[in-house]
Amino acid sequence: MDFSEKDSVDAVLASFADTPDPRLHEVMESLVRHLHGFLRDVRPSIAEWEQGIEFLTAIGQKCDEHRQEYILFSDVLGASMLVETMEAERQAQDATASTVLGPFHVVASPERALGDSVDSLGTGEACLIEGSVAAPDGTPVPGARIDVWQADEQGSYDVESGGRQPLGNGRGLFTADDEGRFWFSSIVPSHYPIPTDGPVGALLRATKRHPYRPAHVHFIVEAPGYVPVTTHVFVEGSEYLDSDAVFAVKQSLVRDFATVDDAGAAARHDLPNPFRRARFDVVLQPASS
Amino acid sequence: MDFSEKDSVDAVLASFADTPDPRLHEVMESLVRHLHGFLRDVRPSIAEWEQGIEFLTAIGQKCDEHRQEYILFSDVLGASMLVETMEAERQAQDATASTVLGPFHVVASPERALGDSVDSLGTGEACLIEGSVAAPDGTPVPGARIDVWQADEQGSYDVESGGRQPLGNGRGLFTADDEGRFWFSSIVPSHYPIPTDGPVGALLRATKRHPYRPAHVHFIVEAPGYVPVTTHVFVEGSEYLDSDAVFAVKQSLVRDFATVDDAGAAARHDLPNPFRRARFDVVLQPASS
Repeated sequence: MDFSEKDSVDAVLASFADTPDPRLHEVMESLVRHLHGFLRDVRPSIAEWEQGIEFLTAIGQKCDEHRQEYILFSDVLGASMLVETMEAERQAQDATASTVLGPFHVVASPERALGDSVDSLGTGEACLIEGSVAAPDGTPVPGARIDVWQADEQGSYDVESGGRQPLGNGRGLFTADDEGRFWFSSIVPSHYPIPTDGPVGALLRATKRHPYRPAHVHFIVEAPGYVPVTTHVFVEGSEYLDSDAVFAVKQSLVRDFATVDDAGAAARHDLPNPFRRARFDVVLQPASS
Repeated sequence: MDFSEKDSVDAVLASFADTPDPRLHEVMESLVRHLHGFLRDVRPSIAEWEQGIEFLTAIGQKCDEHRQEYILFSDVLGASMLVETMEAERQAQDATASTVLGPFHVVASPERALGDSVDSLGTGEACLIEGSVAAPDGTPVPGARIDVWQADEQGSYDVESGGRQPLGNGRGLFTADDEGRFWFSSIVPSHYPIPTDGPVGALLRATKRHPYRPAHVHFIVEAPGYVPVTTHVFVEGSEYLDSDAVFAVKQSLVRDFATVDDAGAAARHDLPNPFRRARFDVVLQPASS
């Protein structure tokens, strides 16, 4: 019998009937149902569908070792944040909230000592970020690994700065001390546009969406025996906190980057005085729970 | 307010609210609803979603000027055929049925004279394909353009033969005569697997689907004042007619490639005797209807 609109889902599901892995089978079945549902709703002409195929192809072709345009596409459609939100619901609610990884974790962060600066250019406003890693009951997690990466005061990551920043600038991999504490200096990041020179940028322009993300520092914190957390610290008062292009703001992750006038502390941390300071205490969920 | 599973669709749709083009707005709205619906059904872990992103990225990166892996992905999900079927429903039912374009129309077909062979290797079983182009009322369409492309007897298109076939082999662009007739010689194509060396091939293996398409010759027939038709002629008796990997078989497009023992006809068409012969009369819908 000829393929028909009415039976299209059944015809394609039948072809997937022998999928050995039950999870893959479930995913393909749902994908086919929703994809065909989308097509029946929208009823694209063949020419429109070809445009769609070209768009999806261009997204893949924009990706390289320093650019992940598909994550960006997932981000601006809220898909990354929805996946992240559903995963977070499976975790206990007393751990630090997670948020999206984003497309810029593409360069390994250089290992740095506690107190080092992640910024080698010094062109931004100096800040100190300090915090601790602990279990929900307050037990410190000594030796936790804290991976951070951030844009600079112009809103650029190293990999998209066209060589203005050396690779690894704005990034650091720290190890918490025996009491689970960490601290490092940096510069206050700026809000920034997600990259707009690819197909996702074209989509944002065509839909009159702005490409901006509020200022933030990315964190992945992990330790043996705990569920790792991928998250951001957002800079209180930053523009776009209420209209993040990738929907990733959680109120519990916004921190005051307060101005501190303390010559002694500035000297101890090799910072100018006054400087900015933010505190981010991370709570990790034990992996067994 | 934080992004939540319950409100994710509304949050993302709000971001698209100012889309100026109503069609784009409609498409993005439906895409967001179905994408979030898929994600809520499947509830991928972040690791699974990353695998999905990598898969979509790899499909784009497999594409080049001779390979369109995204069309292949659309094809094996039945999406291409569903779009094609919905478009065909908008056309009058007395025209020749259309079917999918497929991923191999990537090289312009060389212009050839009526009666020429599209095959320069002569390694397959010779055949003559003849037909006519007419309106539904039987009025001939002189000067119609008939673009054909096909795999050879080993099931390979020129672009995937690794140089065994010169580019343009198996392809021809013909112009119907004053009575709308066309004829050319070729070889009987074989059934063949769609390319399996990319991500789509990996998906077929993981889901235990076979990659085969029944034997066919692709046609695009067009003439000023008529709706062009993109279609295939399938070889009657070919394997996989009832399980085409891309769901594109329509019974009305299957033709007998009969063996003909006719020394005079063979000599006239510069063919060995006996040879195979198929007839494909194409009916085009007037564009104004």
